[in-house]
Amino acid sequence: MDIFPTPAPLAVSIGDPAGIGPEIVAAAWAARRSERLPAFFAIGDRRALEAVWDGPIITLGAPGEAAAAFDDGLPLVQVDDPGEIIPGDPNLAGARCALDSLEIAVGLARNGFAGGIVTGPVSKAQLYAIGFNYPGQTEFVAERCGISASNAVMMLAGPTLRTVPITVHLPLADVPRLLTVDLIVAKSRITARALMRDYGIERPRLAFAGLNPHAGESGTLGREEAEIIRPAVEALQAEDINVHGPLAADSMFHAPARRHYDAAMCMYHDQALIPLKTLHFDDGVNVTLGLPIVRTSPDHGTAFGIAGKGLANPRAMIEAIRMAGQCAARRLTSG
Amino acid sequence: MDIFPTPAPLAVSIGDPAGIGPEIVAAAWAARRSERLPAFFAIGDRRALEAVWDGPIITLGAPGEAAAAFDDGLPLVQVDDPGEIIPGDPNLAGARCALDSLEIAVGLARNGFAGGIVTGPVSKAQLYAIGFNYPGQTEFVAERCGISASNAVMMLAGPTLRTVPITVHLPLADVPRLLTVDLIVAKSRITARALMRDYGIERPRLAFAGLNPHAGESGTLGREEAEIIRPAVEALQAEDINVHGPLAADSMFHAPARRHYDAAMCMYHDQALIPLKTLHFDDGVNVTLGLPIVRTSPDHGTAFGIAGKGLANPRAMIEAIRMAGQCAARRLTSG
Repeated sequence: MDIFPTPAPLAVSIGDPAGIGPEIVAAAWAARRSERLPAFFAIGDRRALEAVWDGPIITLGAPGEAAAAFDDGLPLVQVDDPGEIIPGDPNLAGARCALDSLEIAVGLARNGFAGGIVTGPVSKAQLYAIGFNYPGQTEFVAERCGISASNAVMMLAGPTLRTVPITVHLPLADVPRLLTVDLIVAKSRITARALMRDYGIERPRLAFAGLNPHAGESGTLGREEAEIIRPAVEALQAEDINVHGPLAADSMFHAPARRHYDAAMCMYHDQALIPLKTLHFDDGVNVTLGLPIVRTSPDHGTAFGIAGKGLANPRAMIEAIRMAGQCAARRLTSG
Repeated sequence: MDIFPTPAPLAVSIGDPAGIGPEIVAAAWAARRSERLPAFFAIGDRRALEAVWDGPIITLGAPGEAAAAFDDGLPLVQVDDPGEIIPGDPNLAGARCALDSLEIAVGLARNGFAGGIVTGPVSKAQLYAIGFNYPGQTEFVAERCGISASNAVMMLAGPTLRTVPITVHLPLADVPRLLTVDLIVAKSRITARALMRDYGIERPRLAFAGLNPHAGESGTLGREEAEIIRPAVEALQAEDINVHGPLAADSMFHAPARRHYDAAMCMYHDQALIPLKTLHFDDGVNVTLGLPIVRTSPDHGTAFGIAGKGLANPRAMIEAIRMAGQCAARRLTSG
């Protein structure tokens, strides 16, 4: 990494302060040397951190102080005090703290005070209760970045596999109807561009999963491969993007098959998430591609049930921070 | 295994003689000692075996001779001579050989001359060309056993995971419509019974996957969990079968999650096959539950493209033979 210029420290929103966010952010800071993590600062609430961690916290006067503070303590940008936070017991003040953290993180990244953002886990139910009306953090971040949510692409990335679900949070019955050539082409273009810019892959290889068993078995088990996926693949090939498929989805994810592509383009949520989490349940990173800022997040939820008990595994947060740092550094060089 | 009585040798149909069946059956015999495989005999064509293997073949006068011959050579029940077989170049005579092999294997197992059957890979396209009109070998075997194909349940089994697809070879768009409470209950009963009888699991634990992302997220991402899967789960619980779910399908297949069940009941083909093949591409076994005979098969196809080239991996065939032997032995004791 020494050949790259150093981006500004990353902004890490702690997510819902009653979830496992505070403790895994703190654990990532504690592991910063052994994990060789890039500098970052937390955005959230000091008391929520102190409730689950007794390490040093350095409240920042300004985010520009984070780099210098990072060696000595977890740098923190404090948001409006949410009052007492009890781990595992979410409340509305905590939800406002989570939303403020997210909003400040995006703003600092947009203005260059943060090299990118890593977003801790939030509770959608709690956010909805305070009037948040986005499907999730991703759509909120996209809007704050001034782009359409449809141009923000979710990618799941683990050490041996990257997957992109073309359709995401839909009932399975709606997938065949909502899968279109245009949607596949648009998301694939964004993916290919991001793999070049943020991952340093010169000519990314995208492998497409079929929708149906055996990729439709020559049309006898479904027509979407012939009518939707193949035309999308051909349109992308015409743009000189390196794509292949549609492939039988069940034969794409064992180790030798994974060597043939840089990202698997999947037609629906579980087709992308099942192999990713089967292989990388603890170290999967959720990346939002297509944004003007770098954004990653650990691929898990608030886990209120174990918050504050010292049981939360910080691995995914550590990997999300590492990946955000690498992507941010590559953007600086690739422009 | 010594505590079990020894079943009759297994009948192994070589499948399409121009595919990789002959060489992987021969390789399994060659590895019989190091792999500690139970006795078996091949059913198929001697010349097809000789075309890809130069080890000893002992053509049997009667299947009862197989046990005594097994130490000295690959015991073979010869079917009607299909003429010259060229590896990688299937023809109709080869398809007839494959079908005859299968039919004889089932007959011998039904009559007790074989302890169970292991079926080599066939080409459905070739079989259809000679008038075979079943969706696959499984349905043919079921009919020859005198049971409805709907009572034969496909299970995929690897060393760390077993999965059962409730719906199988359907276009994905048809899955929500064809998934019913009755279908789930019927297949789950057969699975639970088979795990007791053939796998020696006293009280099998079945985990149900949801159909939709996040198992429907409390109904906001689909109603099938509430309207179909949960009622099926409750009906099975009322029969004192150990079931739980529906669970988010993407969080069921990492190692710690797999320890909580003996079989994952999946709602469609790829939901079952993606995790199984991601983890066990080379050693997955396809088992047919609910038959009066034991039947397994390696979970791969004819691989005409590599047939006869010494490239085929016999691992899945070896595991299919091992599993059939174990299931057959357990049936002898459990009755």
